[in-house]
Amino acid sequence: MPKVAVVLCGCGRADGSEIHESVSCLVHLSRLGAQYHCFAPDQPQTDVINHLTGKPEPGQSRNMLVEAARIARGAVSPLSMFRAAQFDAVVFPGGFGVAKNLCSFAREGDKCSVIPDVERVLNEFHAAGKPIGLCCIAPVLAGRVFGTARGGNGCKVTLGEESDAAAALARMGATHVAKRVEEACVDDANRLATSPAYMDDHATPYQVFVGIGHMIESVVAMAATRHA
Amino acid sequence: MPKVAVVLCGCGRADGSEIHESVSCLVHLSRLGAQYHCFAPDQPQTDVINHLTGKPEPGQSRNMLVEAARIARGAVSPLSMFRAAQFDAVVFPGGFGVAKNLCSFAREGDKCSVIPDVERVLNEFHAAGKPIGLCCIAPVLAGRVFGTARGGNGCKVTLGEESDAAAALARMGATHVAKRVEEACVDDANRLATSPAYMDDHATPYQVFVGIGHMIESVVAMAATRHA
Repeated sequence: MPKVAVVLCGCGRADGSEIHESVSCLVHLSRLGAQYHCFAPDQPQTDVINHLTGKPEPGQSRNMLVEAARIARGAVSPLSMFRAAQFDAVVFPGGFGVAKNLCSFAREGDKCSVIPDVERVLNEFHAAGKPIGLCCIAPVLAGRVFGTARGGNGCKVTLGEESDAAAALARMGATHVAKRVEEACVDDANRLATSPAYMDDHATPYQVFVGIGHMIESVVAMAATRHA
Repeated sequence: MPKVAVVLCGCGRADGSEIHESVSCLVHLSRLGAQYHCFAPDQPQTDVINHLTGKPEPGQSRNMLVEAARIARGAVSPLSMFRAAQFDAVVFPGGFGVAKNLCSFAREGDKCSVIPDVERVLNEFHAAGKPIGLCCIAPVLAGRVFGTARGGNGCKVTLGEESDAAAALARMGATHVAKRVEEACVDDANRLATSPAYMDDHATPYQVFVGIGHMIESVVAMAATRHA
């Protein structure tokens, strides 16, 4: 029974973790008998978006860890306490919060940086040959950390169809593989599994659930095998 | 392709709609090819709970419709605009918000009342012989509106195992049927489908997803058949 960490950054597609994607990850992990624990930065979100109007709520502040507890049903720990040694795999659901809170992709595109705790965690798992799952916009984290543009050895991920985001990913020195929402992309060499999820804005919750299912199955399967 | 309304009341187990349950409803509805639309009261939540500590946040206020938009990905309308004539079925996910925002069960138990828009909607669907799905604590809404204690003809629902809540439901003049989390209870005469979901606090996300799947399958099947 693998132990899998899930990294959240709030609760909502526009300013935190996408809710359908996060729940799909948790449902599939429990379906496959994995133990999971959630983590989130104990920091304010970059912004608070009114999800009815799509507009920012100036002056409001929400904490990523406190909001992530809504998805995790209370069982969530500060990201600073998360060590790769205690887990067999790590999963990053998507949501625009990933591009605003966990890295600066929303603002800076291929010039973005990743927050230190996420960069550390990705490098720890990668160095240990432990699998990493990411969906929706979250694969840009892998593109930044493992891409050749800043000295990595490259990696292969999907952001769904070809798009501006996919082009930015390529400029970070990662290989973009076009996939449909129900599919996952697996980079065996780097032990990365990715799925487009709501990068396809017209996707249904069930399509997202199916694609994330393939991603989580790959993560759990890779966690069960030692690296060659 | 049935049209199904989903009634939310915020975004979080302790002060709104339970997130895993709400997403499970949407995933199963889209899996079965149902069209859905979400509704929520355009009113403040009864309270705001910090889901990390479990404590109330005094002085904070969140609007049910605005928070529900996080689960619905923006596509949610005020409950006051919801008419049974436009839909073939209605589904109420659970969460403690149901017992605080949609009725007063959390405070008053079997003496509770249901907010007028929810009472109206339940009576409209029931009168038209259209199915109603409810999970977790939400079946108390049916117990209150259809139970014999206030003049209804009774109904048969589950709140999971026998419990204080189940005893209160019986005092409202509804029949409680004990069920496991992966199961649904179907009251054919009243076209009600219910599932325990997180009434079992130790349930896994996948068990909740499976039980809600049976509930949604029953709702969609009943929506496809005319009442005798």
